[in-house]
Amino acid sequence: MILTVTLNTALDLTYRVRSLRPHASHRVSEVIERPGGKGVNAARVLAALGHETIVTGFVGGATGRVLRDRLGDIPGLADALVPVSGPTRRTIAVVDQLTGDTTQLNEPGPQITPAEWGTFLGRYEELLAGVSAVALCGSLPPGVPVGAYATLVRAARTHGVPVLLDTSGEPLRRGVAARPDVIKPNTDELAELTGSHEPLRATQDARRRGAQAVVASLGADGLLAIAPEGHWRATPPARVHGNPTGAGDSAVAGLLSGLVEELPWPDRLTRAVALSAATVAAPAAGEFDRATFEELLGRISVTGRASAA
Amino acid sequence: MILTVTLNTALDLTYRVRSLRPHASHRVSEVIERPGGKGVNAARVLAALGHETIVTGFVGGATGRVLRDRLGDIPGLADALVPVSGPTRRTIAVVDQLTGDTTQLNEPGPQITPAEWGTFLGRYEELLAGVSAVALCGSLPPGVPVGAYATLVRAARTHGVPVLLDTSGEPLRRGVAARPDVIKPNTDELAELTGSHEPLRATQDARRRGAQAVVASLGADGLLAIAPEGHWRATPPARVHGNPTGAGDSAVAGLLSGLVEELPWPDRLTRAVALSAATVAAPAAGEFDRATFEELLGRISVTGRASAA
Repeated sequence: MILTVTLNTALDLTYRVRSLRPHASHRVSEVIERPGGKGVNAARVLAALGHETIVTGFVGGATGRVLRDRLGDIPGLADALVPVSGPTRRTIAVVDQLTGDTTQLNEPGPQITPAEWGTFLGRYEELLAGVSAVALCGSLPPGVPVGAYATLVRAARTHGVPVLLDTSGEPLRRGVAARPDVIKPNTDELAELTGSHEPLRATQDARRRGAQAVVASLGADGLLAIAPEGHWRATPPARVHGNPTGAGDSAVAGLLSGLVEELPWPDRLTRAVALSAATVAAPAAGEFDRATFEELLGRISVTGRASAA
Repeated sequence: MILTVTLNTALDLTYRVRSLRPHASHRVSEVIERPGGKGVNAARVLAALGHETIVTGFVGGATGRVLRDRLGDIPGLADALVPVSGPTRRTIAVVDQLTGDTTQLNEPGPQITPAEWGTFLGRYEELLAGVSAVALCGSLPPGVPVGAYATLVRAARTHGVPVLLDTSGEPLRRGVAARPDVIKPNTDELAELTGSHEPLRATQDARRRGAQAVVASLGADGLLAIAPEGHWRATPPARVHGNPTGAGDSAVAGLLSGLVEELPWPDRLTRAVALSAATVAAPAAGEFDRATFEELLGRISVTGRASAA
């Protein structure tokens, strides 16, 4: 059983418009509504890979009820979300049909009270007792302490549960110091954490700050991993065209499932890169295309080497 | 008791962003959520003016539940909405804080089945038996026949209930032919109906097409009315700055309340123009500022004359 934490869950809306023009009025031709937030996305991919997965975090309001209804429809996924008084946020991706560009509007999320945060911490500790790995994903809603992920990383380590952290900014900085097993920043997040725009140097620096393994996402160029077991670079065969929404969350699912299955690092990275590319290739944002995934698995190039034992 | 019909009700969201740029990601700093659709807006103003008002139309889904909850909070307003299987649409007004400009995104609305339309028609006939006037407002959701407003106008006339029609395009064209008591087009809607961009000529032409009275909205320049009782022009003292959202719906409320109170046409137009300007001046979209309304009432210029008896 794998646990994913999404403190700022979302109801993700995708709107198709003919052409987005500021100050104009637009008729939305298609509305897609799905449960979102980075940990929810990763959980959906984990469930699709055959891993029983528990989703926790906060949920509230009318948008939260829709989110829970939709989660209930996904096989292999258990809902352990903690109800709060504020409403779950919406995110809106406005897709311009002429250019293919996406414009994103993200609500801030509900105000979390200290009591709600306390309730969550209790629930999280209970859940840790029964899981083999945990992913901590995404932004913090208002009211959650900025050191939240450090607290959650420490609790996981106390329970002996491997923990992957995927966030940015100050919550990442604080969380890294609590020594998570894996972080998965993109190059911007890594540069913000370390001050270096050079991925290899920044990855090494992030490890010195506390992360045991750092898997840097290089976007369409794949992943760069430095871990106690060695260092590797995994690259897809060619640039995949499509919608990158959710590609990073699919990579998290690939890394975490590989960890739980005790795959060697090169196989974990191969799976993560293939899932990520298959997510970009899928027509629906955040879904992965299974045929593309299986076809890509044999075509990911991994270079690097294991550390001397 | 006044009835307003909003076939395509909406949950209106207002998002504040610092600056809207296509293809970028935006943090929404403020979310305002309110029940909407033109007839719902007009009903809220009627209720604020002290007229008991019934709201009907279609409502469905999670968005529809929120809409009904919020309607229930408004004193003087009764909810006679007809539940449907599809979800009530959202509309999103994205306000750019740098420029003050608003970008509008409107979902299309739920697909209405023939059975749901039939249920509505039955409910509407029942409601007509107990009301002194009816306003038919806004766009048609998918599945509703394009001649819907003609049907609703005829039913009102059969019951001897005065009917105001405020819509556009083909639904307006068909509705006008059924001889509503009043239509309230803006100059664009009038031009689309008649082919003329000259307001006086277009207003006369709209009457020949079947409307008994035509009140043309000239935007910030006020209203032009041609009715069996005479013709008038009502003008506010100065251009009011602010958000024009809902100004037309406030004008509908002014006209309809004046009709029910049997005010002379100049007084109805004065009230409609003052309400409209007080809506533009109000900080929240679609609300009217009562002090501005009362102050403006004495300062609207009305020219024109009654027909020879």
